[in-house]
Amino acid sequence: MDALELIDVYWRAANYLSVGQIYLLDNPLLTEPLRPEHIKPRLLGHWGTTPGLNFCFVHLNRIIRERDQDMIYIAGPGHGGPAAVAHAWLEGSYTEKYPEITQDAEGMRRLFRQFSFPGGIPSHVAPETPGSIHEGGELGYALAHAYGAAFDNPDLVVACVIGDGEAETGPLAASWHSNKFLDRSSDGVVLPILHLNGYKIANPTVLARIPEEELVKLMEGYGYRPHIVSGDDPAVMHALMAETLDTVFDQIAEFKHGSADRLPMIILRTPKGWTGPAIVDGVPVEGTWRAHQVPLAAVRDNDEHRAMLEEWMRSYRPNELFDPEGRPVAAITETVPEGPRRMSANPHANGGELLRPLLLPDFRDYAVEVKAPAAAHSEPTRVLGGFLRDVIAANPVDFRLMGPDETASNRLSAVFEVTDRAWHAETLPTDENLSSDGRVMEVLSEHLCQGWLEAYLLTGRHGLFNSYEAFVHIVDAMFNQHAKWLQASKKIPWRRPVASLNYLLSSHVWRQDHNGFTHQDPGFLDVVVNKKAEVVRVYLPPDANTLLSVADHCLRSRDYVNVIVAGKQPVLDLFTMDEAVAHCTRGLGIIDWASNDEGAEPDVVLACAGDVPTLETLAAAALLREHLPELKVRVVNIVDLMRLQPPSEHPHGMSDDQFDALFTTDKPIIFNFHGYPWLIHRLTYRRTGHGNLHVRGYKEEGTTTTPFDMAMLNDIDRYHLVMDVIDRVPELGERAAHLRQRMVDARLRARAHTREYGEDLPEVRDWTWTPHADAR
Amino acid sequence: MDALELIDVYWRAANYLSVGQIYLLDNPLLTEPLRPEHIKPRLLGHWGTTPGLNFCFVHLNRIIRERDQDMIYIAGPGHGGPAAVAHAWLEGSYTEKYPEITQDAEGMRRLFRQFSFPGGIPSHVAPETPGSIHEGGELGYALAHAYGAAFDNPDLVVACVIGDGEAETGPLAASWHSNKFLDRSSDGVVLPILHLNGYKIANPTVLARIPEEELVKLMEGYGYRPHIVSGDDPAVMHALMAETLDTVFDQIAEFKHGSADRLPMIILRTPKGWTGPAIVDGVPVEGTWRAHQVPLAAVRDNDEHRAMLEEWMRSYRPNELFDPEGRPVAAITETVPEGPRRMSANPHANGGELLRPLLLPDFRDYAVEVKAPAAAHSEPTRVLGGFLRDVIAANPVDFRLMGPDETASNRLSAVFEVTDRAWHAETLPTDENLSSDGRVMEVLSEHLCQGWLEAYLLTGRHGLFNSYEAFVHIVDAMFNQHAKWLQASKKIPWRRPVASLNYLLSSHVWRQDHNGFTHQDPGFLDVVVNKKAEVVRVYLPPDANTLLSVADHCLRSRDYVNVIVAGKQPVLDLFTMDEAVAHCTRGLGIIDWASNDEGAEPDVVLACAGDVPTLETLAAAALLREHLPELKVRVVNIVDLMRLQPPSEHPHGMSDDQFDALFTTDKPIIFNFHGYPWLIHRLTYRRTGHGNLHVRGYKEEGTTTTPFDMAMLNDIDRYHLVMDVIDRVPELGERAAHLRQRMVDARLRARAHTREYGEDLPEVRDWTWTPHADAR
Ligand SMILES: Cc1ncc(C[n+]2csc(CCOP(=O)(O)OP(=O)(O)O)c2C)c(N)n1
Ligand SMILES: Cc1ncc(C[n+]2csc(CCOP(=O)(O)OP(=O)(O)O)c2C)c(N)n1
Ligand SMILES: [Mg+2]
Ligand SMILES: [Mg+2]
Repeated sequence: MDALELIDVYWRAANYLSVGQIYLLDNPLLTEPLRPEHIKPRLLGHWGTTPGLNFCFVHLNRIIRERDQDMIYIAGPGHGGPAAVAHAWLEGSYTEKYPEITQDAEGMRRLFRQFSFPGGIPSHVAPETPGSIHEGGELGYALAHAYGAAFDNPDLVVACVIGDGEAETGPLAASWHSNKFLDRSSDGVVLPILHLNGYKIANPTVLARIPEEELVKLMEGYGYRPHIVSGDDPAVMHALMAETLDTVFDQIAEFKHGSADRLPMIILRTPKGWTGPAIVDGVPVEGTWRAHQVPLAAVRDNDEHRAMLEEWMRSYRPNELFDPEGRPVAAITETVPEGPRRMSANPHANGGELLRPLLLPDFRDYAVEVKAPAAAHSEPTRVLGGFLRDVIAANPVDFRLMGPDETASNRLSAVFEVTDRAWHAETLPTDENLSSDGRVMEVLSEHLCQGWLEAYLLTGRHGLFNSYEAFVHIVDAMFNQHAKWLQASKKIPWRRPVASLNYLLSSHVWRQDHNGFTHQDPGFLDVVVNKKAEVVRVYLPPDANTLLSVADHCLRSRDYVNVIVAGKQPVLDLFTMDEAVAHCTRGLGIIDWASNDEGAEPDVVLACAGDVPTLETLAAAALLREHLPELKVRVVNIVDLMRLQPPSEHPHGMSDDQFDALFTTDKPIIFNFHGYPWLIHRLTYRRTGHGNLHVRGYKEEGTTTTPFDMAMLNDIDRYHLVMDVIDRVPELGERAAHLRQRMVDARLRARAHTREYGEDLPEVRDWTWTPHADAR
Repeated sequence: MDALELIDVYWRAANYLSVGQIYLLDNPLLTEPLRPEHIKPRLLGHWGTTPGLNFCFVHLNRIIRERDQDMIYIAGPGHGGPAAVAHAWLEGSYTEKYPEITQDAEGMRRLFRQFSFPGGIPSHVAPETPGSIHEGGELGYALAHAYGAAFDNPDLVVACVIGDGEAETGPLAASWHSNKFLDRSSDGVVLPILHLNGYKIANPTVLARIPEEELVKLMEGYGYRPHIVSGDDPAVMHALMAETLDTVFDQIAEFKHGSADRLPMIILRTPKGWTGPAIVDGVPVEGTWRAHQVPLAAVRDNDEHRAMLEEWMRSYRPNELFDPEGRPVAAITETVPEGPRRMSANPHANGGELLRPLLLPDFRDYAVEVKAPAAAHSEPTRVLGGFLRDVIAANPVDFRLMGPDETASNRLSAVFEVTDRAWHAETLPTDENLSSDGRVMEVLSEHLCQGWLEAYLLTGRHGLFNSYEAFVHIVDAMFNQHAKWLQASKKIPWRRPVASLNYLLSSHVWRQDHNGFTHQDPGFLDVVVNKKAEVVRVYLPPDANTLLSVADHCLRSRDYVNVIVAGKQPVLDLFTMDEAVAHCTRGLGIIDWASNDEGAEPDVVLACAGDVPTLETLAAAALLREHLPELKVRVVNIVDLMRLQPPSEHPHGMSDDQFDALFTTDKPIIFNFHGYPWLIHRLTYRRTGHGNLHVRGYKEEGTTTTPFDMAMLNDIDRYHLVMDVIDRVPELGERAAHLRQRMVDARLRARAHTREYGEDLPEVRDWTWTPHADAR
């Protein structure tokens, strides 16, 4: 057989196996006529995209073998799960990962049965699918993932099939420009294959229906060299695709060698549901939106449909594809690439196999010196910048810092002492810190930052995404999908652990001095804690040294999503480095110098999490110490938010005994929280003392104003906390009525000052902790 | 003065006023040399984008006057708030809305002082800004908003300035293709002005740095006729822009008349911070990223900087712009458009002024007949489809249905009996229901659906967005911003109420039979309830009739975000229409036919919210009635989730007395919830009976499996509920040990059945309510 015939054999086999997965419970080789009991009772899958995915798979396989090309495959239309599974089975890697799914008739039967079947495998290109780093359930991220995988993998080609429906999404539309961030020598190459099968679910697609001339301009405008492969005659199309791929890979080589500036891409125009039933019940199906899911719906009960299914499957000539034992014929097995060159077994698609631990400098070396607690200020993210700089220097090819142009604004600029921003478009003299192999990736698209990083991690590397706190909501949905991927992967023995996805959320809700209400939203934490406890972690270091300790911990971790919330504005230095390490290791603890209950029962617990709320809590403790010195106050700071949960809910959870000992079971707890207050209720509602818990936090009040005015707008300020204590400690109310009134007045005075002078009262703004005579 | 000179006068005035807002507390007309006390202590604003915004404003004003053009303005870089405010002040509408900000020196002083000042106005183009429907705080939505405003406003032009940074975002990149959904006769026109000032915050931008030839292809590929206006000499640029706008508006007229197929757009290339300080402290500022925020940072303390500021402001020659009393000179006031033609006073930008109540058919006419409770099935969204069809028919020019190609999949197809999908690209014979003026807008971009709808509503129209429940998270951030806009607007007397943003979330977490884990996420509700209670509403109608009642209510409401979660799969019909209306009006209630506690104290309360959880709860109640007939069970269904909160937390909140009466203060409450269980804890944690509340819900377990297996995976199934009752009703444990074991076995049997047959046990799947002898 010639090369194109071999390709056709493989394609027919993959198509046959795909249809089988969607429909059959049994009789996989059609050794007997199809009977109702061979058919699944519920037909759940998507045929429409599948023949196109299979077409790309087999053609790329030829290239891999001929050029010994390192390649992985991203199936944008991840609903075409049967294609990826068929491919892995034909390449033998499915059986390697799942030995019970043998490469024979019985294995084929199981392969068919398990698909979209209870207790079986998902309908999408899920973590369960060998060779996948992209599930494609939520559409939009295929191309961003492809680029993320290509960065710092200079010999890799990432083939990326993009559905014409997916191409309408925002994240995908933005992703084309990722080529401006790709370095020809240190990065690999992405080959986008825009799959115009004309339809999404029930509608035509924009890119399939604009004039071809416009589409070509669009792709050229995005900076690619488009190649059109269009038609529906398999033989013609095989020849055209093979020829085009030869050209395309020659152009890729030219690009790598510097003799071409633009990378190629392919526009593949084929019918939706290609090779499937042309007409069903009198209406056209192949080439229409009706082919999207299951072209023949009533196969079990309707004899005619069942006969059509059989005819359809037999049209692939299974006897030419599989031997009587159901094994793929030599024409197939001998043409698949070998070992790790198989896209279904490429280690890049199981990145943990390639993961190298980061070389981390000792974070203690970056510590801020703390001579007295809460007496001097640092900018936590600026301090962290020094550490990150040296992380980057020590790990020049597998650590990247992503952000939507906020690395400098978030005060991590120290990193630019050792690296630049990746940039491959024009550079002007007034630009700073741009170069082709920069480790910092800044694009004004949170989607791209997230998508690039996800795939960078899933292919075995490390990184951190710094974002304004409010705008990280833009990637809520992507976070959800990544967390789900991690959770599912944990149950798959052959998936190796990957580096955690680390978020640094700065420019947070309490310090939007320049911006205002649109920039005030701490709700990402609520989204995060909805995901399985085993994959999410949330940290709120209150000062520079705790931030260093937390960051080091997160960079070492695996298979989590770590969220760190930390300010860029000056905050008080609370902990020496040794104290910070202990505090972060515990995850929370009493701040003894701010408490006066040692050896006694506290009258009230002031709990706090987050830098600004902690500052206000300390200031409140100082006010209480001054005005109500006999009141026993315990100040507890929480860094690791998950400690608040019971151990049954989260692995970091604290036992009830510990919780009770720290927070008491019967004393008022005034909890000053960085985020929305109910999150604390949610984490603690099972605790004995929950009824005594009173939480302050962001309650969606805000505008462009001073930091202390923001605190007052949401009642997290020191004065209000003192009032909360007075209102809640039994019998204090009457005694402390004068003090309470002074607090009300202090708030009024503080507000009036902002209205008159535009800034906070110096006594508020410059407040530091004064050690008390009675302190240790 | 000739037209271009007049333009320059206005431009200088707007620039002067912009700088004044950023810097000055006093001395607005520079009648004396600038002294430190004239300068704001905190300089908070963004200069860089502002001169470009002002440039566009004034040039568009000329067009408005010359052509009597109805036009509104969307400032993508909303951080250029000073520009929009300056413009509104010059046009006189600022003073109309805020009489204390007079059009004279004292008014100018106040105008300057209030900007980004505590107690003043936000730094962005906020709801407070006359003429704005787009705040531009979170970047990405300018162009989608522009199109949403243009739909069904045939005479309107929406000018939309897009920052080259914003253009990197996903939503913006997708928005260009909105032109495929715009009808030349029934819709208005969007004029995109891509503002290449070269930088975002600290980085160059992609579109400013690709070869111009590529950029032009990109815009042509998007289907526009690009016009380049590039330079930095004001005089030259005024001439060029004026000439270009003349051409552009001629081309718009051609398009409207059908003699051109493509609409124009403008590529405006000007220096960032144009006309600002060229060099500060030895480094270039104008034309660089350093101009993004405040070019001169130390104006209060640094005499040199202060002198530069004064020189900069005087460079606009204020004495030519304002008379000695500070009033804009005639050359300005006489060239601004009149009345509602002023972009700062155009009623489209305060859409409530134009809002017409929907003509709603009587939803009762669409009721499903319910002869016996829970005995027959309907598909709620299919029933709703009939109602929506007639809503569309009755409101042909101000109601739209948006969705990411899921209108049919979500079973709302009845709408296609009276309308089509809007579509202006090529159509093939196999397509269905496409036409140029369709009321249904389907694009595979949740961002576009949301963005279009937001602006459609803010310009005074109505609509509904139907989405898969899981993927609505894609627009979490946009929802946040819209809710904030609504909240802020409520405090602004001149902003008139607009129609609510209605979400219909279908294809929900419990019925992802085709898809699986990636499609299972009910967490949007958690995001929604983080926003101010006064603007958010959440409804979980359990059957078709309650869905009709809820939908009618939502379509009539104003200034809210309403979230309706409703399944498309068959569910039991629970309520007759009269019952449904009563139930929805109450927001929750006892289902008496499913309860047997009448006249007695219940032993347990079974609460439920959401269609699938309600079904399982009813089945559990039936099991309890059968096996433990002496147990007094009360079944409570919640439609309006906000009823669970105290009235202090939400306007729909129920008093403690009512809550206690319904849920008891001391009996176990087993709450079966559609979403993540902790949301119920969060809403009820202040209630007396909260300690007895046990919530079941989605706990992030799932895959492609049967509906009942999904329920079992998350322990919301009938059998588990019975076990929960046994475990929690005091003393039942011992007595009911046999029953408990039978429930465990029933789960095992149900699961085993799915594993063997691929579908749910018929007895489970086909379960209906059997009226009991003891029922009333
Ligand atoms: C973000 C998102 N919105 C909606 C869906 C629902 N959905 C599943 S498949 C599909 C159509 C996909 O069309 P296309 O990308 O062209 O794939 P193909 O035609 O190859 O199946 C849609 C809208 C989704 N998966 N993700
Ligand atoms: C989604 C989002 N991410 C990040 C930011 C932070 N941010 C504010 S302004 C800005 C740069 C905007 O650049 P551009 O759109 O070119 O506006 P201009 O240059 O006219 O100021 C950024 C990144 C934001 N506002 N929104
Ligand atoms: Mg398609
Ligand atoms: Mg810009």
